Amino acid sequence: MPAERIAELREKIDAINLQILELLNQRASIASEIGKIQATLGSQIYDPQREGDMLTALEMANNGPFSNETIKTLFKEIFKATLAMEEKQAIAKFMVNRQPGQRDAEIIMPDGTQIGGGVFQVIAGACAIESFEQMDAVGELLAEQGVKIMRGMAFKPRTSPYEFQGLGEPGLKIARQVANKHGLMVVSEIMDMSQVSMMSDYVDLFWVGARNMQNSFLLKALGKVRQPIILKRGFGNNIKEWLNAAEYIISSGNPNIIFMERGIRTFETETRNTLDISAVPVLKTQTHLPVVVDISHSAGRRDIAVPLARVAKASGADGLMVEVHPNPPVAMSDAKQQLFFDQFREVMRAINAMGMPEPVV
Amino acid sequence: MPAERIAELREKIDAINLQILELLNQRASIASEIGKIQATLGSQIYDPQREGDMLTALEMANNGPFSNETIKTLFKEIFKATLAMEEKQAIAKFMVNRQPGQRDAEIIMPDGTQIGGGVFQVIAGACAIESFEQMDAVGELLAEQGVKIMRGMAFKPRTSPYEFQGLGEPGLKIARQVANKHGLMVVSEIMDMSQVSMMSDYVDLFWVGARNMQNSFLLKALGKVRQPIILKRGFGNNIKEWLNAAEYIISSGNPNIIFMERGIRTFETETRNTLDISAVPVLKTQTHLPVVVDISHSAGRRDIAVPLARVAKASGADGLMVEVHPNPPVAMSDAKQQLFFDQFREVMRAINAMGMPEPVV
Amino acid sequence: MPAERIAELREKIDAINLQILELLNQRASIASEIGKIQATLGSQIYDPQREGDMLTALEMANNGPFSNETIKTLFKEIFKATLAMEEKQAIAKFMVNRQPGQRDAEIIMPDGTQIGGGVFQVIAGACAIESFEQMDAVGELLAEQGVKIMRGMAFKPRTSPYEFQGLGEPGLKIARQVANKHGLMVVSEIMDMSQVSMMSDYVDLFWVGARNMQNSFLLKALGKVRQPIILKRGFGNNIKEWLNAAEYIISSGNPNIIFMERGIRTFETETRNTLDISAVPVLKTQTHLPVVVDISHSAGRRDIAVPLARVAKASGADGLMVEVHPNPPVAMSDAKQQLFFDQFREVMRAINAMGMPEPVV
Amino acid sequence: MPAERIAELREKIDAINLQILELLNQRASIASEIGKIQATLGSQIYDPQREGDMLTALEMANNGPFSNETIKTLFKEIFKATLAMEEKQAIAKFMVNRQPGQRDAEIIMPDGTQIGGGVFQVIAGACAIESFEQMDAVGELLAEQGVKIMRGMAFKPRTSPYEFQGLGEPGLKIARQVANKHGLMVVSEIMDMSQVSMMSDYVDLFWVGARNMQNSFLLKALGKVRQPIILKRGFGNNIKEWLNAAEYIISSGNPNIIFMERGIRTFETETRNTLDISAVPVLKTQTHLPVVVDISHSAGRRDIAVPLARVAKASGADGLMVEVHPNPPVAMSDAKQQLFFDQFREVMRAINAMGMPEPVV
Repeated sequence: MPAERIAELREKIDAINLQILELLNQRASIASEIGKIQATLGSQIYDPQREGDMLTALEMANNGPFSNETIKTLFKEIFKATLAMEEKQAIAKFMVNRQPGQRDAEIIMPDGTQIGGGVFQVIAGACAIESFEQMDAVGELLAEQGVKIMRGMAFKPRTSPYEFQGLGEPGLKIARQVANKHGLMVVSEIMDMSQVSMMSDYVDLFWVGARNMQNSFLLKALGKVRQPIILKRGFGNNIKEWLNAAEYIISSGNPNIIFMERGIRTFETETRNTLDISAVPVLKTQTHLPVVVDISHSAGRRDIAVPLARVAKASGADGLMVEVHPNPPVAMSDAKQQLFFDQFREVMRAINAMGMPEPVV
Repeated sequence: MPAERIAELREKIDAINLQILELLNQRASIASEIGKIQATLGSQIYDPQREGDMLTALEMANNGPFSNETIKTLFKEIFKATLAMEEKQAIAKFMVNRQPGQRDAEIIMPDGTQIGGGVFQVIAGACAIESFEQMDAVGELLAEQGVKIMRGMAFKPRTSPYEFQGLGEPGLKIARQVANKHGLMVVSEIMDMSQVSMMSDYVDLFWVGARNMQNSFLLKALGKVRQPIILKRGFGNNIKEWLNAAEYIISSGNPNIIFMERGIRTFETETRNTLDISAVPVLKTQTHLPVVVDISHSAGRRDIAVPLARVAKASGADGLMVEVHPNPPVAMSDAKQQLFFDQFREVMRAINAMGMPEPVV
Repeated sequence: MPAERIAELREKIDAINLQILELLNQRASIASEIGKIQATLGSQIYDPQREGDMLTALEMANNGPFSNETIKTLFKEIFKATLAMEEKQAIAKFMVNRQPGQRDAEIIMPDGTQIGGGVFQVIAGACAIESFEQMDAVGELLAEQGVKIMRGMAFKPRTSPYEFQGLGEPGLKIARQVANKHGLMVVSEIMDMSQVSMMSDYVDLFWVGARNMQNSFLLKALGKVRQPIILKRGFGNNIKEWLNAAEYIISSGNPNIIFMERGIRTFETETRNTLDISAVPVLKTQTHLPVVVDISHSAGRRDIAVPLARVAKASGADGLMVEVHPNPPVAMSDAKQQLFFDQFREVMRAINAMGMPEPVV
Repeated sequence: MPAERIAELREKIDAINLQILELLNQRASIASEIGKIQATLGSQIYDPQREGDMLTALEMANNGPFSNETIKTLFKEIFKATLAMEEKQAIAKFMVNRQPGQRDAEIIMPDGTQIGGGVFQVIAGACAIESFEQMDAVGELLAEQGVKIMRGMAFKPRTSPYEFQGLGEPGLKIARQVANKHGLMVVSEIMDMSQVSMMSDYVDLFWVGARNMQNSFLLKALGKVRQPIILKRGFGNNIKEWLNAAEYIISSGNPNIIFMERGIRTFETETRNTLDISAVPVLKTQTHLPVVVDISHSAGRRDIAVPLARVAKASGADGLMVEVHPNPPVAMSDAKQQLFFDQFREVMRAINAMGMPEPVV
């Protein structure tokens, strides 16, 4: 008997479930229509006042057995789902977002070097341009190892105003000369939008540093250049902010953006930052643009470069960035993390021995 | 025009809300009836198979705009609420939560010392019990300054197994003796539930350290003692988890809990931890129980004790905790943060000069 | 016996210390002479090749017990100190640092308003300039409450490029007009160095936002303006970096800098950021410049504004910053944290009721 | 002429360098002798008072050209190097530390299953034991995929006292039965030392959860059992604390410890925690014990399981842990992160396709 009664009651519940389903979807359709009208008015989707009013009305109408607390929890979930649906529609307009079915972007450099879309590119070089000899030695190493993109940093964002700030334009000349000699592309950090035109004469890619990730004036200016942009993640910034920073560039006209994960600030001190390797697949689910991993600034130490390089490739990233110097202990910056030449060769051997994993998405 | 259309659509949503409310409560009543029948049959309330079947039926019936994923999420919330209602009908709500209109709790010690409810209590003493002489000197200082609650730590949770682990029960004897001599209450850290009965003979309050905040076996055991419990926040724990930890104690029978904020782990290294002073007013909005501030472990340095003591009182906290030692540089633990006696007198002067602020809630 | 042996060995170490000291200073004198000769030759002071040679020689001569690694680290410190001495002989030390015995700086505005040096200034106003009416209402409130410095934000750094970015120069005109009407000073955020000259016509103080704290081009440009600079802490930046950012400004010529603590990023989500209140006394031990506390962006919620305002004053800060809006729920940004007018009056009442605490240093 | 003078001065500097080198090593030898005497006395190596005295003496003797500031900086480096040398000697005694030349430990289970030493083990299973049917389905899957170690969690540490706390001993019986049927080893979480003897009858490995990583009573009790211990990292704990926690176990007698990295708390919210993948090679440089990676709790989402599994293997870890459930959406805990069976098969395919990387050390 009890079993039959249970079966009977369950049927009732099944019917109620379907009625609730029907009402939830009706509700979602109407909310969606409201959202569209609000969009034309330029008003925000999220309206806490309205939510508060609805909850109050529900509390007043509630006779149980669910408590007001429970009813509020359930309706907040419904509000959240509705908001998420509307936001998903708004997100569809973000140009950095991967559209349904969209394949990974391929950025092709003038010399044919490809970033994204199934190749694994290494970006390497000294932390800073110090002299022609130093850069030439690095350039020769990169050519030997088949690396195509060289760091050529002439402006260094330093914590203290009294630390080495880079060689400036003379440094860029050195980088260009060395790149031409060894058949390399140069990427260089830009620190202020006033430098765009001068630097454009020397560099093949621009680099936005962690400290400038949310410098919207610079980002918008880089939306107007022809070169691709490497956009480093700020060490205090989350993934959502990072995607939005890229949207500043792309919405200003430059679709060629490469994300560079470089670790975030946490309480752990064994490494200079904490490499957020999960950010690679998370980004891949959200954007079609290439993602590379900086294994130097994340770790801040050279002894774990080989495993981190393997990790970068295994994560589904489109490449990695690593610092290498002819004589790291006397480098003018980042002396503890730049690789010796032989360590760099080991890193190359390790990643060349791995196949390219299947795409995450 | 758009504004009117919005108003019109909102009315429709209001009507649907009420229909959903009605159905949810009908559903809850029926589920409750099923629950009662199952109870007589001795079968479990939770039936994952049945839930899976209902979700499948809903997915098959769903025509959007909500995605199947969203529908499943919403119905899982409904299932959870139903289950919760059945399982916890006896538990009206979280006992640590401040009920509407509820005033701050007052915890009264056997000697009349009050914690919470408008007084500002100082809890002080050495980091660890080292000797009778050391404790006696501290006890005398506390009596001189009118402090009523003394730290008496005989078990020290240390990072390394080779560091000083505390004097154990002989230490507790010293603490009790000194407390009796100077008319003080003793609070002492308990590290494992096996210590409850032994320690109960010596201490007036139990102290749960940061590392044990989520040790549910210990928390439940402390729900059975007569002494109040000081519950420190874990350095990696958020406020929600902290309130839940207290709920483990209170739901086991002990309503006398004092929250102690002691800083959380962040990237900043000038202080040992980052004192989360906002946690005090945030807690006050959620619970009626007392909150005190540990200005020693948060800072890890003694030179900013006076401003932090003032900050603690200004925040609306019910007291503060500070370490003081007759000879801090030679202390067996926390040498850098324990106060010299004269610094402690300065701290007392600073907070005595401030009025008690009006309650936050 | 062991104690005597230790004393004996320590005497030996003391003697060696003095010998090393003597040699270090001899070495510095000679290096300085070399530097002067090189200056006449126009050659660079820094010579990585020479440093490499010296390190190699030391490694070859080293018989331990110090490892080669340690010896290299120690000598690199000596090289760095030598280089620093030569490069910065003009710069006695960091200009943001409090000199021994130096009192708190007093920054005096043209209308006599003082920041630092024993007064507690409130900086208040809407998150963003939205309209004349909105700003006028705020200006009237500030005048009523005796507040002298008004937020007048015309450029808003937003996460998304599609969010409200501020009214720009027309907004600044509104702010200036309202300030003049009510006898207020205006502070406004500058986002790029290209704005310096235009904004200088409207604002009494410049404001560097959290995202720009390490924008060295902007910082150096602000070293050239006559107005004081409010320098917010980056949400991912530590105190050392913050002091260095101020050094960029002060070393470029502007000594009037006000630090603004605004919370850092942590795992806690009850508040928008975690207010690092300990940063106030920590800064006071290191710099003579004023420090104020932003109680709006740290909390991200208005219900705890009163206790946080009291906390700010108790910490020894020189003031606080708070957002207030005539109608917060409809504000174009930060709707959840801006205060209602009556809440603002409560905040003012709470801090006026408190005495100014004695200076930390 | 100037060039010759420079050469002459450089020779002088070279001579001074060697004198300083000699004195530094003399100093280190004496300090080392003091350290050894202090060790016999049981006193701390680090003595801030003594350092302060030495610095004062040096400041008083200093006549420049180096400033007192510089001299203090240089000598602090010398003190630090000396302390590091002494600590390195102390560390040599830590049993978790890899001794020079020591190979990776191999932990062999009674059925011959090996953890560490060149194999990659997968530990998998449902978050919690819910029923025989559920566990049996999982056990069958594991057998099919050649996995040898099954999660069998009967005690669940939950944030709230009202959440599902696990089936207890009846659950362990189920786990044992299923393990025996499918030829698997069972690992199960222990939450309190009072459970050691009861659980020993059922489990092949013990599991210490993140919340208990610093529960020294539990750790010491697990030093006495015959089963290996999986020691999860606390989400708020650094690597140094983690190694020390293992030292509590190993110094109590159990050398078979497996570290499990499971992510730490940071400000990023796209993942439940931030997987600290660098911790794997960092640990490998410090300890010979196996390290595995929990890809479920770190991510808190199942859609990135495949890339994270590859990352785990590429990092040099000795295995990974992943949750899998016959019907994740209705699981009683961690519903969002448990894998569907087919996802688990994909994870296995991905890691089986990768070779085992060469050891980090």
